Amino acid sequence: MAQLVRNDTAIRPGSIPGVAQEPIMTTITLDTVRALDSDDPLSRFRVRFVLPEGLIYLDGNSLGAMPKALPERVSEMLHREWGAHLIGGWLKDGWMEKPLALGDRLAGLVGAGAGEIAIVDTTSINLFKLLSAALAMRPERRVILSNTENFPTDLYMAQGLIRQLGGGHELRLVSEDTIEDALDEQVAVVMLTETNFKTGAVFDMGAITRAAHAVGALTIWDLAHSAGAFPVDLNGAGADFAVGCSYKYLNAGPGGPAWLFVARRHQEAAHQPLTGWLGHDRPFDFALDYRPAEGIRRHVCSSPGILGLVAFEAALEVMLEADMTDLRRKSVALGDLFIDLVEQECGDAGFTLISPRKAGLTPPWGRGSQVSFAHPDGYGLVQALIARGVVGDFRDPDVMRFGFAPLYQRFEDVWTAVSHLRAVLERGEHLAEAYRERAAVT
Amino acid sequence: MAQLVRNDTAIRPGSIPGVAQEPIMTTITLDTVRALDSDDPLSRFRVRFVLPEGLIYLDGNSLGAMPKALPERVSEMLHREWGAHLIGGWLKDGWMEKPLALGDRLAGLVGAGAGEIAIVDTTSINLFKLLSAALAMRPERRVILSNTENFPTDLYMAQGLIRQLGGGHELRLVSEDTIEDALDEQVAVVMLTETNFKTGAVFDMGAITRAAHAVGALTIWDLAHSAGAFPVDLNGAGADFAVGCSYKYLNAGPGGPAWLFVARRHQEAAHQPLTGWLGHDRPFDFALDYRPAEGIRRHVCSSPGILGLVAFEAALEVMLEADMTDLRRKSVALGDLFIDLVEQECGDAGFTLISPRKAGLTPPWGRGSQVSFAHPDGYGLVQALIARGVVGDFRDPDVMRFGFAPLYQRFEDVWTAVSHLRAVLERGEHLAEAYRERAAVT
Repeated sequence: MAQLVRNDTAIRPGSIPGVAQEPIMTTITLDTVRALDSDDPLSRFRVRFVLPEGLIYLDGNSLGAMPKALPERVSEMLHREWGAHLIGGWLKDGWMEKPLALGDRLAGLVGAGAGEIAIVDTTSINLFKLLSAALAMRPERRVILSNTENFPTDLYMAQGLIRQLGGGHELRLVSEDTIEDALDEQVAVVMLTETNFKTGAVFDMGAITRAAHAVGALTIWDLAHSAGAFPVDLNGAGADFAVGCSYKYLNAGPGGPAWLFVARRHQEAAHQPLTGWLGHDRPFDFALDYRPAEGIRRHVCSSPGILGLVAFEAALEVMLEADMTDLRRKSVALGDLFIDLVEQECGDAGFTLISPRKAGLTPPWGRGSQVSFAHPDGYGLVQALIARGVVGDFRDPDVMRFGFAPLYQRFEDVWTAVSHLRAVLERGEHLAEAYRERAAVT
Repeated sequence: MAQLVRNDTAIRPGSIPGVAQEPIMTTITLDTVRALDSDDPLSRFRVRFVLPEGLIYLDGNSLGAMPKALPERVSEMLHREWGAHLIGGWLKDGWMEKPLALGDRLAGLVGAGAGEIAIVDTTSINLFKLLSAALAMRPERRVILSNTENFPTDLYMAQGLIRQLGGGHELRLVSEDTIEDALDEQVAVVMLTETNFKTGAVFDMGAITRAAHAVGALTIWDLAHSAGAFPVDLNGAGADFAVGCSYKYLNAGPGGPAWLFVARRHQEAAHQPLTGWLGHDRPFDFALDYRPAEGIRRHVCSSPGILGLVAFEAALEVMLEADMTDLRRKSVALGDLFIDLVEQECGDAGFTLISPRKAGLTPPWGRGSQVSFAHPDGYGLVQALIARGVVGDFRDPDVMRFGFAPLYQRFEDVWTAVSHLRAVLERGEHLAEAYRERAAVT
């Protein structure tokens, strides 16, 4: 790899790079990058994950890597709980309480209190519950406000709900930079994904929540690309509702269980329509009429899937050992290093940075834990990198996404990834016939 | 155990006991019962399950026992799929298609065709989807017809939906023996659990479906206590919709994934409101507007939970090896033996059989694969039996439930269970102070 001329401050964990700072012309060598790994307070976490030899995995924003302890915990649940206790596991092994007990553990990571989170169902289904609850809490208002850049499933769930409610509501979609302008007293609820799935841009949750509250609207935050990626402070931001998944930066495995947050102040008023028996106040009375449980429990619907929950539990234990300030600091440094290396190493190759360049150590965060470049040959480039063992992903029409999961990412891997990118470009590997047809998986 | 005077035909697999037959006074000995095990064509399946030494497990109707191959399959998925392929697993390991591919495998067990079943979400949530779809298909009608004996979560989900739709619909509840009388042209959909969770009584699915269709109503069958317990023939019965779970007779583990069935003739008209991106016609286009996929796929909402799905897959493979006629024959014989032993051995102890005595080898089935007795001290009796290692369960107010999962149940265990019941009664163990307060888990 050629030597690079770059802003040296960007590659020191602890620094906040940005245009405001004075660039210092410096040469990055592999030794410099290795020194970053040596100084990394989170470096001990990498061995806790299964990462195939030789693979550079930059897609933890889509599916996190497997914690080594997870299979053992799952096996233990199967043999020592289900196998040994059978039906008795629901009480003896705490299965019945796991959605709330594990919710309390997750709460610490996202700035929620005990009794404000349940681990349950899927992100989309939880969004349906909370959108329903929010609309019912603002019966005189008709608008769900969101942004055209939102992850489509969130928009689809809102559309399904509006259709079911008879069509009297409206999904108002605006671009992400005009959310505050679009707020008015018709808005019942603002539904946003905090971190843009394509660009990694992070909304200012506190500012938008305050603006929404100022016009009497509620907020629902989808934290799919936020939780575990950088510090989240739901109560600090005054958030009303939130949903999230477990399989991206929380590493719980493909399609792992999702979660929802209801601020304590709303728990009495918030009623969701998927009123299953485990959300009943006294499920084992088997009464004919539903009566909602107090608190967060009414958002649990069905018997919880224990396999998924114990996997999440095992993954969360690893994450909870990490200091979130260290995590954010490293995430910023990884992203900054990648941006600087790509722009300076492949600067004339037609890349456009579509992620925010600025990433803060305190809110507003600016950029999350991914970096995206647009490139006309983006699909071919991502595929050619995958063929070389550097796994990022592609999103239409031209977006190359690279996620940096600070728990298991090394600085040296960023260096190597960019070396491969340059080699792909030099040899034209991205122009291969095989990459003319596109296929993608989130 | 004292010798019993009973109807000998009841204990030979292949016979159909019942009041219509001439009782033959015979003495049952342990040798007789052991001979039933020797002749059992399904006896080879017991070793395929993890069953703690000394435990007699009669609660497979609540949570099935663990297939021995299941942990290995789960471990393989973790290490060889997630661990090795990371994000690539969605395509390489068929994760993305698993809800439908596994649905096609389950289809054979419940009389459905390929493309009519998806393995997805939870039973209650699937019921919400299909109830919504059914009501929208009968817009001029306002009634959901069900029975007071239905499992409460089904009623609660209907209540939640009705509330969501603005209250213009009605949940009409009648007793299970008057369903057909309650059918009229106001009924949009008949929602029934085929097998009563307390008594094990099985509706005549074919007859009720025909009666519903005769007044223009649709049917939704909850097969939680049917699938894997005895032959189910959805298309033979002309069923419109169905839902079911995987963790009872299908042995997929606590809270395992649920499934839903939509008859092919309804697939174009059936629209459900939980319109997540994986039910979209082209999810990876990331279009702003939802457009339902063709066929059963539109009932999939979110990224599927792969851990639960592979566990279900492993369990289903065992079940699919069994001949369903053998399975039913054995189930009937186990239940008959239990009824006869309890009534004749403990005949003066105050038990009332609340399950149907008659269990057919062809529809109408009469009794499913469980036997329930009412007893004033039912709770204490169940607890005292559990203390002796005989696991049944209790349902308010006075119901003792005993499930017979034919894949792993032995006839000799039925003998031993009744011996324990008699010993509990003789020693008054069920009257212990500890059993005065009730707690129960389904």
